[in-house]
Amino acid sequence: ANSADEALSLKKNDTLYQVSTINSLLAGNYDGFISSGELKNYGDVGIGTFNALDGEMVMIDNTAYKVKSTGEVVKVSDTETTPFAVVTHFDKDATVELTNIANLDALKAELDKLIENKNLFYVFRIDGTFKTIQARSVPRQEKPYPVMTEAVKQQSVFSFTNVTGSIVGIWCPDYIGGVNVPGYHFHFISEDRTQGGHLLDVSFDKALAFADSTDGFVMAVSPTEPEGSVKDLGSELDAVEQ
Amino acid sequence: ANSADEALSLKKNDTLYQVSTINSLLAGNYDGFISSGELKNYGDVGIGTFNALDGEMVMIDNTAYKVKSTGEVVKVSDTETTPFAVVTHFDKDATVELTNIANLDALKAELDKLIENKNLFYVFRIDGTFKTIQARSVPRQEKPYPVMTEAVKQQSVFSFTNVTGSIVGIWCPDYIGGVNVPGYHFHFISEDRTQGGHLLDVSFDKALAFADSTDGFVMAVSPTEPEGSVKDLGSELDAVEQ
Ligand SMILES: [Zn+2]
Ligand SMILES: [Zn+2]
Repeated sequence: ANSADEALSLKKNDTLYQVSTINSLLAGNYDGFISSGELKNYGDVGIGTFNALDGEMVMIDNTAYKVKSTGEVVKVSDTETTPFAVVTHFDKDATVELTNIANLDALKAELDKLIENKNLFYVFRIDGTFKTIQARSVPRQEKPYPVMTEAVKQQSVFSFTNVTGSIVGIWCPDYIGGVNVPGYHFHFISEDRTQGGHLLDVSFDKALAFADSTDGFVMAVSPTEPEGSVKDLGSELDAVEQ
Repeated sequence: ANSADEALSLKKNDTLYQVSTINSLLAGNYDGFISSGELKNYGDVGIGTFNALDGEMVMIDNTAYKVKSTGEVVKVSDTETTPFAVVTHFDKDATVELTNIANLDALKAELDKLIENKNLFYVFRIDGTFKTIQARSVPRQEKPYPVMTEAVKQQSVFSFTNVTGSIVGIWCPDYIGGVNVPGYHFHFISEDRTQGGHLLDVSFDKALAFADSTDGFVMAVSPTEPEGSVKDLGSELDAVEQ
């Protein structure tokens, strides 16, 4: 592929846009190749990470935030790049009130009810005041990059209580293989944009969940190959998601 | 996703466009949902099948052909739909002359040398006069649709000798999971467009191979769910590919 930049037209609001693959990220390919500025053209809500695995990305209201491993949250400049992210132009296809959620598994069980077609992709946004949130972030890595199961050993875990904010997440079908994480993957950001991270656990009395189902999937594969390799996709995914 | 049909712009010539997933097809979802006319907007070269699993699709020079299970080849109308296809706007990123290919495995071994980045997708077109070609097609299925391992038991196998034509195929990365077939998948069509099918084996003295690498992947997920399910992706893929 190399000829004129003729455009392929796809419906914007029915499309999940993904940068790279989870397989490539697990194998240690942390080289960013799509800028935050470009990413905002493809979606206004989503999750991801940054060049050199430098923190957790939360895209919300078309603004990209970085949760550093120090816990500090910063607004991201348009030139900063990502090696892995998933965003969509968010529509509220379904809205439900969730009550008395004791933990992350209970949240997943409730959201499962909104997944009517298990072949589609779903993006979720959950707004509320959360009794407890446990979240993590990872520090910037140096080359040669370690594989992700090694990198996450340096993660910082944050605990927040009675914090108002939004959980942003995606759900991918079982057939997704090493393209993305099968099932759920959530990030959190507080309403005042000062706290957040990759969500490890949550509890709350009441929150509003919005679901967006998409039947269009677009992926931009990384031009660089990872340093390492993935030996056991399932167990490595389990290791980095926790 | 449901709001205005605003367009997402992607580079046309760097994109592989896929209809549905191999997982859905294996599970018996043969309901076409993208028309051949629409498919031609997304690519001029590719492979696939038709509504009700009615034959093998070869897209070449932006024309879609159907190889029926009777062996007859027909040009497809723009209204005919597909439940699974992969097409691209083909660029000749690399051209090599292949000589003395004894069988399909030997062809794959030669094409492997053109796969410089195992994270990308590759589309191949191989033009030549082939000493032997073994190809198959499958008959139209009736609802309730059987899973694909059942449907292919009714396949017809064709043997051609000294036939001039084109092999069209794609290569998908290992991480692709149930999205598509990992590795190679080829279809054949004769130059006079009267013979073809899903390629089972081939031998030839000399042919010209063109490779197109793409880093953009677009998938349209089926709105319908399959009747059956996939128990063992790897072994079911092996069963239907032969
Ligand atoms: Zn995360
Ligand atoms: Zn085929």
